[in-house]
Amino acid sequence: MTDTVVSSATREVVIGFERPFVMIGERINPTGRKILAAEMAAGDFSRVEADVRAQVAAGAHMLDVNAGIPLADEPAILARAVQLVQSITDLPLSIDSSIVAALEAGLAVYKGKPLVNSVTGEEERLEAVLPLVKKYGAAVVAISNDETGISEDPDVRFEVAKKIVQRAADYGIPASDVVVDPLVMPIGAINQAGVQVMHLLRRLKNELKVNTTCGASNVSFGLPAREGVSAVFLTMAIGSGLTSAIMNPLHLEIVKACMGADVMMGHDPDCARWIRKFREVPAMQASGGVAPPTEGAARGRREGGHRRRVT
Amino acid sequence: MTDTVVSSATREVVIGFERPFVMIGERINPTGRKILAAEMAAGDFSRVEADVRAQVAAGAHMLDVNAGIPLADEPAILARAVQLVQSITDLPLSIDSSIVAALEAGLAVYKGKPLVNSVTGEEERLEAVLPLVKKYGAAVVAISNDETGISEDPDVRFEVAKKIVQRAADYGIPASDVVVDPLVMPIGAINQAGVQVMHLLRRLKNELKVNTTCGASNVSFGLPAREGVSAVFLTMAIGSGLTSAIMNPLHLEIVKACMGADVMMGHDPDCARWIRKFREVPAMQASGGVAPPTEGAARGRREGGHRRRVT
Repeated sequence: MTDTVVSSATREVVIGFERPFVMIGERINPTGRKILAAEMAAGDFSRVEADVRAQVAAGAHMLDVNAGIPLADEPAILARAVQLVQSITDLPLSIDSSIVAALEAGLAVYKGKPLVNSVTGEEERLEAVLPLVKKYGAAVVAISNDETGISEDPDVRFEVAKKIVQRAADYGIPASDVVVDPLVMPIGAINQAGVQVMHLLRRLKNELKVNTTCGASNVSFGLPAREGVSAVFLTMAIGSGLTSAIMNPLHLEIVKACMGADVMMGHDPDCARWIRKFREVPAMQASGGVAPPTEGAARGRREGGHRRRVT
Repeated sequence: MTDTVVSSATREVVIGFERPFVMIGERINPTGRKILAAEMAAGDFSRVEADVRAQVAAGAHMLDVNAGIPLADEPAILARAVQLVQSITDLPLSIDSSIVAALEAGLAVYKGKPLVNSVTGEEERLEAVLPLVKKYGAAVVAISNDETGISEDPDVRFEVAKKIVQRAADYGIPASDVVVDPLVMPIGAINQAGVQVMHLLRRLKNELKVNTTCGASNVSFGLPAREGVSAVFLTMAIGSGLTSAIMNPLHLEIVKACMGADVMMGHDPDCARWIRKFREVPAMQASGGVAPPTEGAARGRREGGHRRRVT
């Protein structure tokens, strides 16, 4: 079935229905992180560097890079962040901005084939972003809302996703390079948010046959023990067809859910990755809390079932 | 859709697709518990009593009672265990034996409408167990294997389940009183066990429209951090249509998965039960480990969204 291939200069990651789930680290994002925003605006990228290393150590397969800082020169900062991150890790990146000039600045310096995050179904966005995606030979996240906003009806969101895939094709971008974000709402506010998104994920897999991603932390907004809600969401969503997510790999409870889902989907032969990750972790720690970076680093080197060197 | 109603003398529990997931405590079972087996055979039920209280405190909605002790008088022991358990808790019970005389002894003393665990698709079992189920007005667990064993093909298992439902109808037992066990194999041994059972659960929900249960601990046999595997299995299975499971409610990680799945399925309005359970639990504890009985007991009294008194 559909494979979406992204890469850095030396490493490929494939998002696909017959592949292990792809965890995209969400941490390099100044939204809601005042200190990080101030540091990035001032040219201090030390915290970005630490975030890269921690997420790599925790087992992320890709990293999202966002430089959305109000009143700052976002194109310049995003380009610098992309270059810095690529100098530290060979994980492929998702270049994340709502500003087209920033996406272009990031794309211009990127080595490999990134994921552009994102385009929506809004005409203006489609016309601005899709030519860039084509020009740089990237893949793109397609968010299933348009000028009318985000519909609570998953079948309306399906039609928006379908339209974006068709418009991408018009620009010469294959459906395999469009990764649809079905949009997950906070379930504390919308009781049916889970049912809606599971239905949409099944349609996206079975009918549109596209890969999918989403911001997984959003679902648990405002709830206690929220990593538990995010973990359950990811597990059930993977069962419904979700093939990647932008998420926090520093929460072991969430990584465990994704790796367990790989076991359940038959994407971890002989449970080899599960056994390697958890055989030495005490029960309490394996169940939750924050992944210890050093231990994670040692494990990270031995993993990577779905990664292969291209050079 | 299909509702399976079970009860004790004073409490009803409903298993159904539009209901919160039903957790059936698995602990009262001497299989693999030598001390418990010896004690029960010698007429000492103090450990059974402790197991009842701990599971009730942890939030179980029903309890499974098994007295399968080699060379012991299983009918007498099972009947005594059923009476003892019903004197301690008003949770409905699943009466669990492979010996027909033991099932009958348990049914004869049971107050309310129990779940009989179990019948298979084997002719001899169908003819022995179904008349008992009808006679006592019980519901029954239907295990999807027959004389040919357990098929690895989920569609063959579906046909066995269908046959049992039809045979039950011949005895005057409605499909709503048949709870199918799709059989989950250890995923450490059979890589496709998860995919098989999810496929079967979807068919049982959408085509046969029957409720389902299974022994959830089996899936993680032999693996490290096995509660994590069982938790992921349950979450994904609930998303595929599983409506109850025989499981260990003393592992908070597993209870958390089931309660989180209720949130995701829209069966926990305003996330009220989730919030009540987890708002005061520290992050580490909420993520794993064993539920503290006293705290659980306090919570248990306040819960019970799908329980109502019948008298």
